[in-house]
Amino acid sequence: MLRFIGLGINGYKTMSTHVLEILRNCNTIYLDKFTGFVSDDDLKELRSLAELHGFEINILPAERWFVEDGRDILEQARTSDLVLLTYGDPFIATTLIELYVRAVKNSIKVDVIHAASGITSLIGEAGLHIYKFGRIVTITSEQLSTVSVYNAIFENLLRRNHTLILTEYNNEHGKLFFLNPNSAFKALLQAEMDFRFKVFFEDTFAIVASRIGMQDQKIVSGTVRSLNGINFGQGPHSIIITGALHFTEVEALMTLTYNLNEPLDNTANMQNLSAGMIARYAPKARQALSQLKRISSTDNGISGNKINMEILANAECYIDDAERFLLQGKPELAVLSIGYAEGLIDAMGVTKEIDP
Amino acid sequence: MLRFIGLGINGYKTMSTHVLEILRNCNTIYLDKFTGFVSDDDLKELRSLAELHGFEINILPAERWFVEDGRDILEQARTSDLVLLTYGDPFIATTLIELYVRAVKNSIKVDVIHAASGITSLIGEAGLHIYKFGRIVTITSEQLSTVSVYNAIFENLLRRNHTLILTEYNNEHGKLFFLNPNSAFKALLQAEMDFRFKVFFEDTFAIVASRIGMQDQKIVSGTVRSLNGINFGQGPHSIIITGALHFTEVEALMTLTYNLNEPLDNTANMQNLSAGMIARYAPKARQALSQLKRISSTDNGISGNKINMEILANAECYIDDAERFLLQGKPELAVLSIGYAEGLIDAMGVTKEIDP
Repeated sequence: MLRFIGLGINGYKTMSTHVLEILRNCNTIYLDKFTGFVSDDDLKELRSLAELHGFEINILPAERWFVEDGRDILEQARTSDLVLLTYGDPFIATTLIELYVRAVKNSIKVDVIHAASGITSLIGEAGLHIYKFGRIVTITSEQLSTVSVYNAIFENLLRRNHTLILTEYNNEHGKLFFLNPNSAFKALLQAEMDFRFKVFFEDTFAIVASRIGMQDQKIVSGTVRSLNGINFGQGPHSIIITGALHFTEVEALMTLTYNLNEPLDNTANMQNLSAGMIARYAPKARQALSQLKRISSTDNGISGNKINMEILANAECYIDDAERFLLQGKPELAVLSIGYAEGLIDAMGVTKEIDP
Repeated sequence: MLRFIGLGINGYKTMSTHVLEILRNCNTIYLDKFTGFVSDDDLKELRSLAELHGFEINILPAERWFVEDGRDILEQARTSDLVLLTYGDPFIATTLIELYVRAVKNSIKVDVIHAASGITSLIGEAGLHIYKFGRIVTITSEQLSTVSVYNAIFENLLRRNHTLILTEYNNEHGKLFFLNPNSAFKALLQAEMDFRFKVFFEDTFAIVASRIGMQDQKIVSGTVRSLNGINFGQGPHSIIITGALHFTEVEALMTLTYNLNEPLDNTANMQNLSAGMIARYAPKARQALSQLKRISSTDNGISGNKINMEILANAECYIDDAERFLLQGKPELAVLSIGYAEGLIDAMGVTKEIDP
């Protein structure tokens, strides 16, 4: 039998007697060091807890290759009772879902004990509403990951949503690595220089949640500029880039987190591209229209090409349409309409050899 | 002191000795019946577990008004040790975050024990990747909620993301109500009839997760048509509308869930509106262009208005631009360009009194 047992995020405090009985009676216990970080203190406490319950616990470390490969785990689970202890809730890690699928396909019995996940915990402890989060992303020290994180923030901000960014964690060959939130900020500021979608600045409001569930948990909020002055210590760290904030979220951030600056609306900077186009082109188009009308009223069709009043009226309708579509939440139709109106007007302008 | 203690989703199995000690020594225990569902069986098991540890547990029910109002809770927590037991992870519920903030503002000490949340658990048990979920929504029996859920699915599908839909649960005045997944499907099919964004059909692939963490947990996947033939029993229920599926997700769905139909890509139907516009208008515009060119070659400016070859060449450039912008991931510019090209062409067409 293969048992996935989540350790949650509060260490020994949330270890149940049911789980302790499993650990007492099973054949082998692996600690998954790949998909999440379990501290030495937590392990020590777990050992003491077992001793308190009258048994000695023998935990084998499982490194990345061992968990990803998984064949040893499945082979042992076929004939014995094997436990895989994991940080948080097990199936947040796709590697563990895969192992689950392989076990079921190989007719190996599976048991799952869910536990507190860092994701739901830190969102709640920061006082933010889970319904306001867009896609969750992970940032690593690789350039490519920054681009996709930058894009995710952009897309989430467009919809006024918050973005939860998990940061890289590595624990291979005895070397523990946590990506520093400041490195993540630096990479995202660089991405802003490269792409200029108005997503991420030194004035961007952000939250850094470190060591959630541990004794020295810390949640700091403020502008990136302020956060850059903070030493966040050891990981795991997570970052939240807030979108539009509900007033209860603002209050919660100021009350529950170590708050350096008043929470800002990060979507204020962001202009929806479509809305920006209508704002820029609609007044210009109206101006060109009235210029053409003025010319045509003194023109009376004497010159080579007559300004077609029907086309001008049509263009005016399309400018109105563009603004209405935008208000109706139909940005594509709005942009199509303003483009069409511009085309009609410019065709008249070129025809008249003016340049509106 | 105010203690928020999550019960998780696995019932007594995940109740730790640490939490049991808190329950033994505290002054008052409320069970929050508002923000989540705790079954009578779970309560019975909790009572037995306490007895097993040598004490009697007295749990008071807290209904909606009592939790939302919160004044009684805060008043008691000021002078005594008060526990609020909640389903899942406490701060998924915004009402409980608010209570947390009010406690801190009133200098009342707070303790939080996180626990497994239904959200992360069911996503993992269905074999889906948490990184592929867009915004989470809740559907209730109110019409307005359907519209916002329909829109959320639409926006998530556009980005190829999955949508987790929590369903209404109510437990007031002794009346327990769970929104039936079939009612949710019916409402969403009606929304499709009303809005026609190609979001939700009888062929849409969906997942229904019922009673996650309980003994009779069930996860069923299939088309809405197939799912409509299923009696899902008592809640709580959650629904997932999948976006683009990774092949490991397809395999997981077929292995881990009670699978009625092969998983489908729900984004296949969905055409990005911008891409659809370019696909529809670019060929039409090119056709109109060649028609105008043909006319102008036999026309030689004899008729009233000359076809301006410069404008035609310009329009051709803008059609090319539209297609290139789309490939470059700049849909707004693509739509603006195709609209502009159409405007130029139609102005020439109207001028020539043809209707391309």
